[in-house]
Amino acid sequence: MKDDKISRSVIKRLPRYYRILTDLEKAGMDRISSKELSIRLSVTASQIRQDLNCFGGFGQQGYGYNISDLRKEIASILGIGDVAKTILIGAGNLGRAIATHVPFTDLGFELIGIYDSDTLFSGLRIKNLPISSMDSLPEFCQENQPQTAILCIPDKSAPEIVSLLMQLGIRSFWNFTHYDIASNFPTAIVENVNLSDSLMTLSYLHKYGDTKL
Amino acid sequence: MKDDKISRSVIKRLPRYYRILTDLEKAGMDRISSKELSIRLSVTASQIRQDLNCFGGFGQQGYGYNISDLRKEIASILGIGDVAKTILIGAGNLGRAIATHVPFTDLGFELIGIYDSDTLFSGLRIKNLPISSMDSLPEFCQENQPQTAILCIPDKSAPEIVSLLMQLGIRSFWNFTHYDIASNFPTAIVENVNLSDSLMTLSYLHKYGDTKL
Repeated sequence: MKDDKISRSVIKRLPRYYRILTDLEKAGMDRISSKELSIRLSVTASQIRQDLNCFGGFGQQGYGYNISDLRKEIASILGIGDVAKTILIGAGNLGRAIATHVPFTDLGFELIGIYDSDTLFSGLRIKNLPISSMDSLPEFCQENQPQTAILCIPDKSAPEIVSLLMQLGIRSFWNFTHYDIASNFPTAIVENVNLSDSLMTLSYLHKYGDTKL
Repeated sequence: MKDDKISRSVIKRLPRYYRILTDLEKAGMDRISSKELSIRLSVTASQIRQDLNCFGGFGQQGYGYNISDLRKEIASILGIGDVAKTILIGAGNLGRAIATHVPFTDLGFELIGIYDSDTLFSGLRIKNLPISSMDSLPEFCQENQPQTAILCIPDKSAPEIVSLLMQLGIRSFWNFTHYDIASNFPTAIVENVNLSDSLMTLSYLHKYGDTKL
């Protein structure tokens, strides 16, 4: 990588680039002008160039971009292809929806275990994985060394469970709770999904009718 | 409002301010210094001042912030309190999780109808609302005038359904699909939740171990 201080806003755009390039490749396109790509991605051609330059740059003057190559490069930048073993904690409505809805394999993650503290769920299966009791988690982690955990648990359980998971060697968290993991565990790698905050953002946009923010 | 060109990044921080102020108020606190508040919110005191100044400013020199007043002001900025009638389209795993998991009423939304094109779901209830067939949507919208729609439908159904909803008077969309509503319907108000993009962001962060982005 050319520069290791990539801003979070660049990183946040790459998944969309990857997704749209995947669609273009599936549609049978092999190359694309920077102007056409910028229309597809809804950003300016100069923004794309600037974003890709953070990683060394990929376009050729007068040729544009080779879709398959660019997609592969972005996949590699995003770490798609290295498979991260992942466990899901919390098998309530949200956990079940995440387990069934998200295409983990396509995104470089392998869901290898589902855990819930409620023994009511024990023995049930989601996507062919059994829901296991939290008691069996330490042994499972020792044997299988998952690196990533998805947290679909109540906020109040989060401090204790994150602390346990860190001890068990989990490094990164896809966090659906409101618990501020990053402040409490500075070495943790965290991506938060805060559905309530997202809906409040819509509330604001709706109130002020501003579609251009 | 002091300035109507508020950046999206400020808007994105306000829901978190609101949430944390709600917790502080519930914990019985009535006022807070700007330094203490900045620790709770994990942003600098100057950032908070700057964010709130966009809306006219609320702190008093030497006093800090009155928690209840500040919370009320932010609620009003976010449009929490004005209730937006909302319908959910798509009652699959994700739709069901959203319907049961998100505290709509607390956030200024009232879920008044759930629709799915799959008649298999017809007659089932989520949170005491029946799942209705799409056929009955036009009449329902005419009678009840919902303003907001939550889209938990397959990407490929989105263009047709968004077009229908716009005709039925829906103004704002909480969009869980990958369909780019804003580009196709410039007057629509859109907040996207893209779970795949979020997981790819975690993949990147995990790969480079950068916790400081």
